[in-house]
Amino acid sequence: MAKPKKTARPKATAPRGFIDTPAAEMRATAAMIARIQQVYESYGFEPLDTPAFEYTEALGKFLPDVDRPNEGVFSIQDEDEQWMSLRYDLTAPLARYVAQNFERLPRPFRRYAYGPIWRNEKPGPGRYRQFIQFDADTVGTDAMTADAEICMLFSDTMEALGIARGQYVIRLNNRKLLDGVLEGAGLAGEAHAGTRLGVLRAIDKCDRLGIEGVRALLGEGRKDESGDFTRGAGLDLDAVTPLIAYIEAGREGRSATLDALRPLVEASEIGREGLEELARIDALLSAAGYEADQVAIEPTVVRGLEYYTGPVMEAELTFEAHDDEGRSVRFGSVGGGGRYDGLVARFKGTQMPAVGCSVGVSRLQAALRHLGLLEETAAAGPVVVLVMDHADVVRYQRLTQTLRRAGVRAEMYLGTAGMKAQMKYADKRQAPCVVIQGGDEIAAGTVQIKDLVEGARLSETISDAKAWREGRPAQVSVPEAEMVEAVRRVLARDDAEAASDAGDGSAAAHALTQDQG
Amino acid sequence: MAKPKKTARPKATAPRGFIDTPAAEMRATAAMIARIQQVYESYGFEPLDTPAFEYTEALGKFLPDVDRPNEGVFSIQDEDEQWMSLRYDLTAPLARYVAQNFERLPRPFRRYAYGPIWRNEKPGPGRYRQFIQFDADTVGTDAMTADAEICMLFSDTMEALGIARGQYVIRLNNRKLLDGVLEGAGLAGEAHAGTRLGVLRAIDKCDRLGIEGVRALLGEGRKDESGDFTRGAGLDLDAVTPLIAYIEAGREGRSATLDALRPLVEASEIGREGLEELARIDALLSAAGYEADQVAIEPTVVRGLEYYTGPVMEAELTFEAHDDEGRSVRFGSVGGGGRYDGLVARFKGTQMPAVGCSVGVSRLQAALRHLGLLEETAAAGPVVVLVMDHADVVRYQRLTQTLRRAGVRAEMYLGTAGMKAQMKYADKRQAPCVVIQGGDEIAAGTVQIKDLVEGARLSETISDAKAWREGRPAQVSVPEAEMVEAVRRVLARDDAEAASDAGDGSAAAHALTQDQG
Repeated sequence: MAKPKKTARPKATAPRGFIDTPAAEMRATAAMIARIQQVYESYGFEPLDTPAFEYTEALGKFLPDVDRPNEGVFSIQDEDEQWMSLRYDLTAPLARYVAQNFERLPRPFRRYAYGPIWRNEKPGPGRYRQFIQFDADTVGTDAMTADAEICMLFSDTMEALGIARGQYVIRLNNRKLLDGVLEGAGLAGEAHAGTRLGVLRAIDKCDRLGIEGVRALLGEGRKDESGDFTRGAGLDLDAVTPLIAYIEAGREGRSATLDALRPLVEASEIGREGLEELARIDALLSAAGYEADQVAIEPTVVRGLEYYTGPVMEAELTFEAHDDEGRSVRFGSVGGGGRYDGLVARFKGTQMPAVGCSVGVSRLQAALRHLGLLEETAAAGPVVVLVMDHADVVRYQRLTQTLRRAGVRAEMYLGTAGMKAQMKYADKRQAPCVVIQGGDEIAAGTVQIKDLVEGARLSETISDAKAWREGRPAQVSVPEAEMVEAVRRVLARDDAEAASDAGDGSAAAHALTQDQG
Repeated sequence: MAKPKKTARPKATAPRGFIDTPAAEMRATAAMIARIQQVYESYGFEPLDTPAFEYTEALGKFLPDVDRPNEGVFSIQDEDEQWMSLRYDLTAPLARYVAQNFERLPRPFRRYAYGPIWRNEKPGPGRYRQFIQFDADTVGTDAMTADAEICMLFSDTMEALGIARGQYVIRLNNRKLLDGVLEGAGLAGEAHAGTRLGVLRAIDKCDRLGIEGVRALLGEGRKDESGDFTRGAGLDLDAVTPLIAYIEAGREGRSATLDALRPLVEASEIGREGLEELARIDALLSAAGYEADQVAIEPTVVRGLEYYTGPVMEAELTFEAHDDEGRSVRFGSVGGGGRYDGLVARFKGTQMPAVGCSVGVSRLQAALRHLGLLEETAAAGPVVVLVMDHADVVRYQRLTQTLRRAGVRAEMYLGTAGMKAQMKYADKRQAPCVVIQGGDEIAAGTVQIKDLVEGARLSETISDAKAWREGRPAQVSVPEAEMVEAVRRVLARDDAEAASDAGDGSAAAHALTQDQG
């Protein structure tokens, strides 16, 4: 092939922190999305899509990483000098949409949304700058029934994705409890805003650092294993004690946890309010049959986003797994949510209560794959029509179109190579069978259908090469007019075998491929 | 509700040129995507997703608007100083992907991709800065069978979307013919590159300006109705004459057009090559049964993107329609494609022939909607469980969960309003029926199911208010244990009616809702 003149060539790579998604993974994502969508739709949520860009001022600054309030987003200045940013979640755009369409939306307004979001963060292993979230939100009611439903939805979603009870837990808390216990520790008021933030961040690290680590961060500070010192919130013992008691208030059941929390927060009005809300959610969950292994109350759940005002929840994968080197792996949070009563008010000036949750699809998918739990759906590869005579391509094109029109996924071999390479191509494409029409077949008005799946199976049992060639196993000759029917018989047997081999998962994958094309 | 303190509030609006997609439209888009996907999959193409960003140098500068080679894309400088841009089509990222994964891809590699692309252009009515494209490409073969297949795929896609034969046409041409005729007009070689570009742009405007307009643009220039003057390519009559003959070479059939083109380009080698390629595609199309009303050869098709090297095609909607004010509306191009043998070579240094097409989903959807051809699928709204006693919400939550677990889309009313407002909410949500359980029903262990669809129908025939109230039409009382079954009976009747009212379209919409959730 001709070489173009040598100039500096661009690197063939996606920008750092961005990845491609090839076919098998895309089919797996589509299957996940369809399952989540089915749960969300069953709850009555309606789809909504908003664009990738929002005005920067509309998005606000709610990213978790409070050290860098101006970073974390991709922003661009438009020609009219206004700054726009790529959405970093699906909640801020929803708040803008509701404020914009306030008058004509049903109230409450229940919407779901999925799609990519972008975070301008330092990429690392498994840490990307574009990923998919799948959110559901109820806007326009402050009833705790809405919060309880989000917990149920979250739990149903995990189980719909094949994560069994006991392998995940929805961890529920209330920001108002945190406010109450901070008040009890003498940290109410504007003057202590910075300290409160430090305390919340320390509590948030409880899973990772353990109670002694948090105790150090609440006090003077903590030196980690590498010797690095993190300055603490600087609280004295009187303030630290109630906070530690709060952190340790988690019990086996939801009611028991609420009972343990009560004495720690009931001195404060906001604390009592938080307790009452959680008690209400607990009652609704219990009546609907959701137990503590599905939705637990966990005092250490903080959730980073500053806009949460009430109940917060987090979906966590709890099972341990081992990576290729046998090391223990925990995946932790695969989604979060909570109540954010002030977000729409940023635009409208009046409160518009709202609650919702977000499933991290990319993250969850990575976790499931790593654990071998993901259906890596073998694509139903196309039937490949071999080209036995490159001068007579029109003939093979016609056979191919006949198959396609009958609804059979089919390809004619488009290269210039011979028979052997064509068979190799068909294997690579995971073709269930190939269609062969050489000179003999043309003369006889027939085609040969070679079943590659059956052939592979038989090749394990027949060792005599001569018997193999003469017997032409897994190959049938039919009149050309019966080609479609014969191919369909092969596909039907493959489908049945795949379903009985792999159980429900693979059958679902085939159904997906057929429904969606 | 409490008013937060007054500060400058952000505007509740999406950035200019960006739009939201509410539920009905999203469902319509999903239905379109599913149909296109079904066609693409039947041809053996496999899905691929690439990220929104590419390195700017990897994308190259192939945007149609040659006046602004550095504009038209959204670009951002990363922290490591490298420039990244949002993809402006799905072809450039494919070229990067193929170059990056060259060794391990089947060859030819057939992939489809859909998703948003971004163009940093001046927004206007119906002109957005983010829209959806759906592409299919075959990389790694220069066989015209691949190009012929793209034409067939394009045609099949239009018809799968409900656009009848005669309402659309795939217009096929070859860049090599244009090169040949330019050579014939004495415009070969580097020295004439600028002039050639001007000529191509003039030819591209033939549809809009007519032959005399193009003649003016090939010569001195053209004054439009507003008096604005556009400078022409400055050709003399000897050069203009063969170009005009070329432009007018379109005939009724593909062979007739090729015959008319032959004397105009056969003096040039590249022209002969182009003719031969089109003749080959024509033979394949004819053998597969695609006629000239489906795929026509049209000498004036240029396609803007500079990377095309051979056959180019354009999907055009040909029927006239009328807008709300009775004005005639034509939608023109809803997709395009062609062969681009040099795009992968930008990275690899060796040629990697490729051909593909792109359907403008957003554009096509807008056209179909405008013409009333789009199924605006009425969502199957959720069953709404009314809250007759707000203190007893747990009871209604349980009824709702029972419905959801049985696979019925259901919602409990989450607001605080009374019966009348709840019925209004149910109407707004397009609920097929509501479930009512007041004190009497609780005592009797029953629920009332009120069929809103049937009720609306009956309300047109029953005018006696008293008879209406007493008869309780379209309302049944069943034991609570039979609620699911009774609701299912209502849904089944609604589905059957919708299918018989609206024919295939609505039934397909229901199927979509059910399959995808």
